Amino acid sequence: MAAPPYRYGQRKDDYQARLRRIEGQVRGISRMVEGDTYCIDVLTQIAAAKRALEKVAVGLLDDHLRGCVTDAARDDDPRRADEIIAEATAAIERLVRS
Amino acid sequence: MAAPPYRYGQRKDDYQARLRRIEGQVRGISRMVEGDTYCIDVLTQIAAAKRALEKVAVGLLDDHLRGCVTDAARDDDPRRADEIIAEATAAIERLVRS
Amino acid sequence: MAAPPYRYGQRKDDYQARLRRIEGQVRGISRMVEGDTYCIDVLTQIAAAKRALEKVAVGLLDDHLRGCVTDAARDDDPRRADEIIAEATAAIERLVRS
Amino acid sequence: MAAPPYRYGQRKDDYQARLRRIEGQVRGISRMVEGDTYCIDVLTQIAAAKRALEKVAVGLLDDHLRGCVTDAARDDDPRRADEIIAEATAAIERLVRS
Repeated sequence: MAAPPYRYGQRKDDYQARLRRIEGQVRGISRMVEGDTYCIDVLTQIAAAKRALEKVAVGLLDDHLRGCVTDAARDDDPRRADEIIAEATAAIERLVRS
Repeated sequence: MAAPPYRYGQRKDDYQARLRRIEGQVRGISRMVEGDTYCIDVLTQIAAAKRALEKVAVGLLDDHLRGCVTDAARDDDPRRADEIIAEATAAIERLVRS
Repeated sequence: MAAPPYRYGQRKDDYQARLRRIEGQVRGISRMVEGDTYCIDVLTQIAAAKRALEKVAVGLLDDHLRGCVTDAARDDDPRRADEIIAEATAAIERLVRS
Repeated sequence: MAAPPYRYGQRKDDYQARLRRIEGQVRGISRMVEGDTYCIDVLTQIAAAKRALEKVAVGLLDDHLRGCVTDAARDDDPRRADEIIAEATAAIERLVRS
Protein backbone atom coordinates (compact mmCIF):
# COMPACT_ATOMS: atom_id res chain seq x y z
CA MET A 1 0.00 0.00 0.00
CA ALA A 2 3.08 2.19 -0.09
CA ALA A 3 2.53 3.01 -3.74
CA PRO A 4 0.34 5.91 -4.80
CA PRO A 5 -2.41 5.24 -7.35
CA TYR A 6 -0.50 4.52 -10.51
CA ARG A 7 -1.29 5.38 -14.12
CA TYR A 8 0.72 4.59 -17.23
CA GLY A 9 -1.46 7.07 -19.10
CA GLN A 10 -0.63 7.82 -22.69
CA ARG A 11 2.42 5.53 -22.70
CA LYS A 12 0.26 2.50 -21.89
CA ASP A 13 -0.55 1.83 -25.55
CA ASP A 14 3.11 2.05 -26.50
CA TYR A 15 4.17 -0.40 -23.77
CA GLN A 16 1.42 -2.82 -24.69
CA ALA A 17 2.29 -2.69 -28.38
CA ARG A 18 5.93 -3.39 -27.54
CA LEU A 19 5.04 -6.25 -25.19
CA ARG A 20 2.73 -7.77 -27.82
CA ARG A 21 5.66 -7.67 -30.26
CA ILE A 22 7.93 -9.40 -27.71
CA GLU A 23 5.25 -12.04 -27.13
CA GLY A 24 5.27 -12.64 -30.90
CA GLN A 25 9.08 -12.85 -30.89
CA VAL A 26 9.00 -15.53 -28.17
CA ARG A 27 6.34 -17.46 -30.10
CA GLY A 28 8.56 -17.21 -33.20
CA ILE A 29 11.53 -18.59 -31.22
CA SER A 30 9.38 -21.54 -30.16
CA ARG A 31 8.48 -22.19 -33.80
CA MET A 32 12.17 -22.01 -34.76
CA VAL A 33 12.95 -24.74 -32.20
CA GLU A 34 9.94 -26.75 -33.44
CA GLY A 35 11.33 -26.52 -36.99
CA ASP A 36 14.89 -27.44 -35.91
CA THR A 37 16.29 -24.04 -36.96
CA TYR A 38 20.05 -23.75 -36.58
CA CYS A 39 20.86 -22.97 -32.93
CA ILE A 40 22.92 -19.82 -33.65
CA ASP A 41 19.94 -18.22 -35.43
CA VAL A 42 17.69 -19.07 -32.49
CA LEU A 43 20.22 -17.45 -30.13
CA THR A 44 20.22 -14.27 -32.23
CA GLN A 45 16.44 -14.04 -31.81
CA ILE A 46 16.67 -14.67 -28.07
CA ALA A 47 19.24 -11.85 -27.72
CA ALA A 48 16.84 -9.56 -29.65
CA ALA A 49 13.85 -10.44 -27.42
CA LYS A 50 15.96 -9.97 -24.29
CA ARG A 51 17.07 -6.57 -25.58
CA ALA A 52 13.47 -5.55 -26.34
CA LEU A 53 12.43 -6.51 -22.78
CA GLU A 54 15.29 -4.40 -21.40
CA LYS A 55 14.12 -1.40 -23.41
CA VAL A 56 10.62 -1.71 -21.94
CA ALA A 57 12.18 -1.95 -18.47
CA VAL A 58 14.34 1.15 -19.00
CA GLY A 59 11.26 3.03 -20.24
CA LEU A 60 9.27 2.02 -17.15
CA LEU A 61 12.15 3.08 -14.90
CA ASP A 62 12.30 6.46 -16.61
CA ASP A 63 8.56 6.91 -16.01
CA HIS A 64 9.03 5.82 -12.42
CA LEU A 65 11.76 8.43 -11.81
CA ARG A 66 9.58 11.12 -13.39
CA GLY A 67 6.48 10.07 -11.47
CA CYS A 68 6.86 8.32 -8.14
CA VAL A 69 10.45 9.33 -7.32
CA THR A 70 9.82 12.99 -8.17
CA ASP A 71 6.60 13.00 -6.10
CA ALA A 72 8.38 11.37 -3.16
CA ALA A 73 11.22 13.92 -3.38
CA ARG A 74 8.63 16.67 -2.94
CA ASP A 75 6.88 14.93 -0.05
CA ASP A 76 7.14 16.57 3.35
CA ASP A 77 8.11 13.27 4.92
CA PRO A 78 11.75 12.55 3.99
CA ARG A 79 11.36 8.86 4.83
CA ARG A 80 9.00 8.58 1.88
CA ALA A 81 11.77 9.57 -0.61
CA ASP A 82 14.18 7.23 1.19
CA GLU A 83 11.90 4.24 0.78
CA ILE A 84 10.99 4.96 -2.83
CA ILE A 85 14.62 5.43 -3.84
CA ALA A 86 15.80 2.29 -2.02
CA GLU A 87 13.10 0.38 -3.91
CA ALA A 88 14.09 1.92 -7.27
CA THR A 89 17.77 1.11 -6.66
CA ALA A 90 16.90 -2.51 -5.86
CA ALA A 91 14.90 -2.74 -9.10
CA ILE A 92 17.84 -1.29 -11.08
CA GLU A 93 20.18 -3.81 -9.45
CA ARG A 94 17.91 -6.75 -10.36
CA LEU A 95 17.84 -5.49 -13.94
CA VAL A 96 21.62 -5.02 -14.17
CA ARG A 97 22.17 -8.53 -12.81
CA SER A 98 19.46 -10.39 -14.73
CA MET B 1 24.43 -23.81 -45.75
CA ALA B 2 27.38 -24.13 -43.36
CA ALA B 3 25.21 -25.79 -40.74
CA PRO B 4 24.66 -29.54 -40.71
CA PRO B 5 21.09 -30.83 -40.48
CA TYR B 6 20.03 -29.86 -36.99
CA ARG B 7 17.86 -31.68 -34.46
CA TYR B 8 16.87 -30.58 -30.98
CA GLY B 9 15.65 -34.15 -30.35
CA GLN B 10 14.44 -35.02 -26.90
CA ARG B 11 15.16 -31.54 -25.52
CA LYS B 12 12.73 -29.96 -27.97
CA ASP B 13 9.71 -30.50 -25.69
CA ASP B 14 11.55 -28.99 -22.76
CA TYR B 15 12.55 -25.87 -24.74
CA GLN B 16 9.06 -25.42 -26.09
CA ALA B 17 7.50 -25.79 -22.64
CA ARG B 18 9.89 -23.16 -21.30
CA LEU B 19 9.25 -20.78 -24.19
CA ARG B 20 5.50 -21.20 -23.77
CA ARG B 21 5.94 -20.25 -20.12
CA ILE B 22 7.96 -17.15 -21.09
CA GLU B 23 5.27 -16.19 -23.61
CA GLY B 24 2.75 -16.38 -20.76
CA GLN B 25 5.03 -14.25 -18.57
CA VAL B 26 5.20 -11.55 -21.24
CA ARG B 27 1.42 -11.66 -21.66
CA GLY B 28 1.11 -11.30 -17.88
CA ILE B 29 3.42 -8.26 -17.93
CA SER B 30 1.20 -6.67 -20.58
CA ARG B 31 -1.86 -7.27 -18.39
CA MET B 32 -0.04 -5.70 -15.42
CA VAL B 33 0.58 -2.54 -17.48
CA GLU B 34 -3.05 -2.64 -18.65
CA GLY B 35 -4.18 -2.77 -15.01
CA ASP B 36 -1.79 0.03 -13.92
CA THR B 37 0.20 -2.28 -11.64
CA TYR B 38 2.93 -0.54 -9.66
CA CYS B 39 5.98 -0.11 -11.88
CA ILE B 40 8.45 -1.81 -9.53
CA ASP B 41 6.35 -5.00 -9.59
CA VAL B 42 6.26 -4.91 -13.39
CA LEU B 43 10.06 -4.54 -13.43
CA THR B 44 10.44 -7.59 -11.20
CA GLN B 45 8.45 -9.65 -13.71
CA ILE B 46 10.49 -8.30 -16.63
CA ALA B 47 13.74 -9.29 -14.85
CA ALA B 48 12.28 -12.80 -14.35
CA ALA B 49 11.29 -13.16 -18.02
CA LYS B 50 14.71 -11.91 -19.13
CA ARG B 51 16.38 -14.42 -16.81
CA ALA B 52 14.20 -17.26 -18.18
CA LEU B 53 15.17 -16.33 -21.76
CA GLU B 54 18.84 -16.37 -20.76
CA LYS B 55 18.46 -19.86 -19.32
CA VAL B 56 16.99 -21.12 -22.60
CA ALA B 57 19.90 -19.47 -24.46
CA VAL B 58 22.52 -21.07 -22.18
CA GLY B 59 20.82 -24.46 -22.68
CA LEU B 60 20.89 -24.05 -26.47
CA LEU B 61 24.57 -23.04 -26.33
CA ASP B 62 25.38 -26.13 -24.27
CA ASP B 63 23.62 -28.31 -26.87
CA HIS B 64 25.48 -26.47 -29.61
CA LEU B 65 28.88 -27.15 -28.00
CA ARG B 66 27.97 -30.82 -27.55
CA GLY B 67 26.64 -31.15 -31.09
CA CYS B 68 27.94 -28.86 -33.80
CA VAL B 69 31.17 -27.73 -32.14
CA THR B 70 32.15 -31.29 -31.16
CA ASP B 71 31.37 -32.55 -34.69
CA ALA B 72 33.37 -29.72 -36.24
CA ALA B 73 36.35 -30.44 -33.93
CA ARG B 74 36.42 -34.00 -35.29
CA ASP B 75 36.12 -32.88 -38.92
CA ASP B 76 39.13 -33.51 -41.17
CA ASP B 77 38.98 -29.93 -42.43
CA PRO B 78 40.34 -27.64 -39.67
CA ARG B 79 38.68 -24.59 -41.23
CA ARG B 80 35.33 -26.13 -40.35
CA ALA B 81 36.09 -26.01 -36.59
CA ASP B 82 37.47 -22.49 -37.00
CA GLU B 83 34.27 -21.21 -38.58
CA ILE B 84 31.93 -22.95 -36.17
CA ILE B 85 33.85 -21.69 -33.13
CA ALA B 86 34.05 -18.11 -34.43
CA GLU B 87 30.27 -18.25 -34.91
CA ALA B 88 29.69 -19.65 -31.40
CA THR B 89 31.93 -16.99 -29.85
CA ALA B 90 30.01 -14.24 -31.66
CA ALA B 91 26.73 -15.67 -30.33
CA ILE B 92 28.12 -15.79 -26.79
CA GLU B 93 29.26 -12.17 -27.12
CA ARG B 94 25.80 -11.03 -28.30
CA LEU B 95 24.31 -12.80 -25.30
CA VAL B 96 26.75 -11.31 -22.80
CA ARG B 97 26.10 -7.83 -24.19
CA SER B 98 22.34 -8.03 -24.62
CA MET C 1 28.13 23.13 -16.05
CA ALA C 2 24.69 21.56 -15.61
CA ALA C 3 25.83 19.64 -12.55
CA PRO C 4 25.78 21.21 -9.10
CA PRO C 5 28.96 21.03 -7.00
CA TYR C 6 29.26 17.38 -6.18
CA ARG C 7 30.49 15.65 -3.03
CA TYR C 8 30.74 11.93 -2.31
CA GLY C 9 31.25 12.84 1.36
CA GLN C 10 31.44 10.02 3.85
CA ARG C 11 30.92 7.34 1.20
CA LYS C 12 34.08 8.41 -0.63
CA ASP C 13 36.35 6.20 1.50
CA ASP C 14 34.08 3.21 0.96
CA TYR C 15 34.07 3.67 -2.83
CA GLN C 16 37.81 4.12 -2.95
CA ALA C 17 38.44 1.03 -0.83
CA ARG C 18 36.19 -0.98 -3.13
CA LEU C 19 37.85 0.36 -6.28
CA ARG C 20 41.30 -0.39 -4.84
CA ARG C 21 40.14 -3.96 -4.24
CA ILE C 22 38.89 -4.22 -7.85
CA GLU C 23 42.21 -2.85 -9.11
CA GLY C 24 43.92 -5.64 -7.14
CA GLN C 25 41.52 -8.20 -8.64
CA VAL C 26 42.39 -7.06 -12.18
CA ARG C 27 46.11 -7.21 -11.34
CA GLY C 28 45.56 -10.74 -10.00
CA ILE C 29 43.80 -11.73 -13.25
CA SER C 30 46.80 -10.47 -15.21
CA ARG C 31 49.11 -12.60 -13.04
CA MET C 32 46.86 -15.62 -13.62
CA VAL C 33 47.25 -15.17 -17.39
CA GLU C 34 51.01 -14.64 -16.93
CA GLY C 35 51.20 -17.94 -15.01
CA ASP C 36 49.06 -19.82 -17.59
CA THR C 37 46.26 -20.45 -15.09
CA TYR C 38 43.43 -22.59 -16.45
CA CYS C 39 41.09 -20.38 -18.48
CA ILE C 40 37.91 -21.30 -16.59
CA ASP C 41 39.45 -20.10 -13.32
CA VAL C 42 40.47 -16.83 -14.96
CA LEU C 43 36.88 -16.39 -16.22
CA THR C 44 35.53 -16.91 -12.70
CA GLN C 45 37.74 -14.05 -11.47
CA ILE C 46 36.69 -11.81 -14.36
CA ALA C 47 33.00 -12.42 -13.53
CA ALA C 48 33.75 -11.49 -9.89
CA ALA C 49 35.55 -8.25 -10.86
CA LYS C 50 32.71 -7.34 -13.24
CA ARG C 51 30.18 -7.95 -10.47
CA ALA C 52 32.17 -5.79 -8.04
CA LEU C 53 32.25 -2.93 -10.58
CA GLU C 54 28.47 -3.25 -11.01
CA LYS C 55 27.96 -2.96 -7.25
CA VAL C 56 29.99 0.27 -7.17
CA ALA C 57 27.88 1.57 -10.08
CA VAL C 58 24.59 0.70 -8.36
CA GLY C 59 25.83 2.44 -5.19
CA LEU C 60 26.74 5.58 -7.15
CA LEU C 61 23.32 5.54 -8.85
CA ASP C 62 21.59 5.26 -5.48
CA ASP C 63 23.57 8.29 -4.23
CA HIS C 64 22.71 10.12 -7.44
CA LEU C 65 18.97 9.52 -6.98
CA ARG C 66 19.18 10.67 -3.35
CA GLY C 67 21.25 13.74 -4.21
CA CYS C 68 21.00 15.24 -7.67
CA VAL C 69 17.67 13.76 -8.75
CA THR C 70 15.98 14.67 -5.48
CA ASP C 71 17.36 18.22 -5.64
CA ALA C 72 16.24 18.60 -9.25
CA ALA C 73 12.75 17.34 -8.37
CA ARG C 74 12.48 20.17 -5.84
CA ASP C 75 13.78 22.80 -8.26
CA ASP C 76 11.33 25.48 -9.38
CA ASP C 77 12.35 24.94 -13.00
CA PRO C 78 10.70 21.68 -14.18
CA ARG C 79 13.13 21.41 -17.11
CA ARG C 80 15.91 20.84 -14.59
CA ALA C 81 14.28 17.60 -13.31
CA ASP C 82 13.58 16.56 -16.89
CA GLU C 83 17.23 16.87 -17.90
CA ILE C 84 18.62 15.21 -14.81
CA ILE C 85 16.24 12.26 -15.11
CA ALA C 86 16.90 11.79 -18.84
CA GLU C 87 20.61 11.70 -18.01
CA ALA C 88 20.12 9.19 -15.18
CA THR C 89 18.00 6.95 -17.40
CA ALA C 90 20.69 6.99 -20.10
CA ALA C 91 23.30 6.00 -17.50
CA ILE C 92 21.09 3.14 -16.28
CA GLU C 93 20.62 1.95 -19.86
CA ARG C 94 24.38 1.94 -20.50
CA LEU C 95 24.85 -0.10 -17.35
CA VAL C 96 22.13 -2.62 -18.20
CA ARG C 97 23.61 -3.09 -21.66
CA SER C 98 27.31 -3.16 -20.78
CA MET D 1 43.97 -31.84 -12.35
CA ALA D 2 41.31 -32.28 -15.02
CA ALA D 3 42.85 -29.53 -17.14
CA PRO D 4 45.68 -30.22 -19.56
CA PRO D 5 48.81 -28.06 -19.32
CA TYR D 6 47.64 -24.68 -20.43
CA ARG D 7 49.39 -22.03 -22.46
CA TYR D 8 48.10 -18.63 -23.57
CA GLY D 9 51.04 -18.46 -26.00
CA GLN D 10 51.21 -15.53 -28.36
CA ARG D 11 47.95 -14.03 -27.08
CA LYS D 12 49.37 -13.67 -23.56
CA ASP D 13 50.93 -10.26 -24.32
CA ASP D 14 47.69 -9.00 -25.79
CA TYR D 15 45.65 -10.11 -22.74
CA GLN D 16 48.15 -8.59 -20.34
CA ALA D 17 48.23 -5.29 -22.21
CA ARG D 18 44.42 -5.16 -22.10
CA LEU D 19 44.28 -6.05 -18.41
CA ARG D 20 46.90 -3.41 -17.62
CA ARG D 21 44.71 -0.87 -19.43
CA ILE D 22 41.66 -1.96 -17.40
CA GLU D 23 43.69 -1.66 -14.19
CA GLY D 24 44.50 1.92 -15.26
CA GLN D 25 40.81 2.57 -15.98
CA VAL D 26 39.85 1.41 -12.47
CA ARG D 27 42.58 3.59 -10.95
CA GLY D 28 41.22 6.50 -12.99
CA ILE D 29 37.70 5.84 -11.68
CA SER D 30 39.06 5.96 -8.13
CA ARG D 31 40.70 9.31 -8.86
CA MET D 32 37.41 10.61 -10.29
CA VAL D 33 35.65 9.73 -7.02
CA GLU D 34 38.53 11.30 -5.05
CA GLY D 35 38.08 14.52 -7.08
CA ASP D 36 34.27 14.53 -6.67
CA THR D 37 33.68 14.10 -10.42
CA TYR D 38 30.02 14.18 -11.41
CA CYS D 39 28.48 10.74 -10.80
CA ILE D 40 27.15 10.25 -14.34
CA ASP D 41 30.67 10.63 -15.77
CA VAL D 42 32.00 8.11 -13.26
CA LEU D 43 29.23 5.68 -14.30
CA THR D 44 30.23 6.05 -17.96
CA GLN D 45 33.79 5.03 -17.09
CA ILE D 46 32.56 2.07 -15.02
CA ALA D 47 30.45 0.86 -17.97
CA ALA D 48 33.55 1.14 -20.21
CA ALA D 49 35.75 -0.86 -17.78
CA LYS D 50 33.04 -3.50 -17.42
CA ARG D 51 32.79 -3.78 -21.19
CA ALA D 52 36.57 -4.11 -21.53
CA LEU D 53 36.57 -6.94 -18.97
CA GLU D 54 33.81 -8.68 -20.92
CA LYS D 55 35.85 -8.49 -24.10
CA VAL D 56 38.81 -10.15 -22.38
CA ALA D 57 36.45 -12.85 -21.10
CA VAL D 58 34.96 -13.49 -24.56
CA GLY D 59 38.51 -13.72 -26.00
CA LEU D 60 39.51 -16.26 -23.34
CA LEU D 61 36.35 -18.28 -24.02
CA ASP D 62 37.14 -18.31 -27.74
CA ASP D 63 40.65 -19.61 -26.99
CA HIS D 64 39.15 -22.17 -24.65
CA LEU D 65 36.77 -23.48 -27.32
CA ARG D 66 39.64 -23.66 -29.83
CA GLY D 67 42.00 -25.35 -27.38
CA CYS D 68 40.57 -27.39 -24.52
CA VAL D 69 37.09 -28.03 -25.91
CA THR D 70 38.45 -29.07 -29.33
CA ASP D 71 41.03 -31.37 -27.73
CA ALA D 72 38.38 -32.91 -25.49
CA ALA D 73 36.08 -33.48 -28.48
CA ARG D 74 38.85 -35.54 -30.10
CA ASP D 75 39.58 -37.52 -26.95
CA ASP D 76 38.76 -41.23 -27.02
CA ASP D 77 36.97 -40.94 -23.69
CA PRO D 78 33.59 -39.24 -24.32
CA ARG D 79 33.23 -38.34 -20.65
CA ARG D 80 36.17 -35.98 -21.08
CA ALA D 81 34.25 -33.84 -23.65
CA ASP D 82 31.16 -34.01 -21.43
CA GLU D 83 33.01 -32.60 -18.43
CA ILE D 84 34.85 -29.90 -20.34
CA ILE D 85 31.66 -28.69 -22.05
CA ALA D 86 29.65 -28.67 -18.81
CA GLU D 87 32.41 -26.55 -17.30
CA ALA D 88 32.49 -24.15 -20.28
CA THR D 89 28.70 -23.77 -20.19
CA ALA D 90 28.81 -22.94 -16.47
CA ALA D 91 31.47 -20.29 -17.16
CA ILE D 92 29.34 -18.79 -19.95
CA GLU D 93 26.33 -18.71 -17.63
CA ARG D 94 28.29 -16.90 -14.89
CA LEU D 95 29.41 -14.38 -17.48
CA VAL D 96 25.91 -13.82 -18.88
CA ARG D 97 24.55 -13.31 -15.37
CA SER D 98 27.36 -11.19 -13.90
